[in-house]
Amino acid sequence: MKARVHVMLKNGVLDPQGDAVRHALGTLGFDGVNGVRQGKVIDLDLADGTSEETIRDMCEKLLANTVIESYSVEIA
Amino acid sequence: MKARVHVMLKNGVLDPQGDAVRHALGTLGFDGVNGVRQGKVIDLDLADGTSEETIRDMCEKLLANTVIESYSVEIA
Repeated sequence: MKARVHVMLKNGVLDPQGDAVRHALGTLGFDGVNGVRQGKVIDLDLADGTSEETIRDMCEKLLANTVIESYSVEIA
Repeated sequence: MKARVHVMLKNGVLDPQGDAVRHALGTLGFDGVNGVRQGKVIDLDLADGTSEETIRDMCEKLLANTVIESYSVEIA
């Protein structure tokens, strides 16, 4: 089975990487870019029957720093 | 309007970061993790009416290195 995890910085946490992308898009002539947030996407190829709870456990223990990051799990 | 861009390494391109995550999950006792690929997710807050073509142009010019990365655009 496949699962996709998104890890994003929480709202209110500064995202300098996203700001750099926004600035670079402006420099390249793309107008109207009001904000950019950059995060990670992690595609997991797991043994069949792995529970969403297990995947959330992976996020809590390794994939996300829950102090500053939030995560979401999609099972495909 | 909001758009989300996923940038992933193409199949066949080595992903040492994903391999490191897979190894670390095994070390933490998570069995059955057959593969991990890590990529970027970029959330764009754009002026209303920005076309998907414009967003693809942003990907081609800045967000993705199309030699080794593929991208997908979702408009929310």
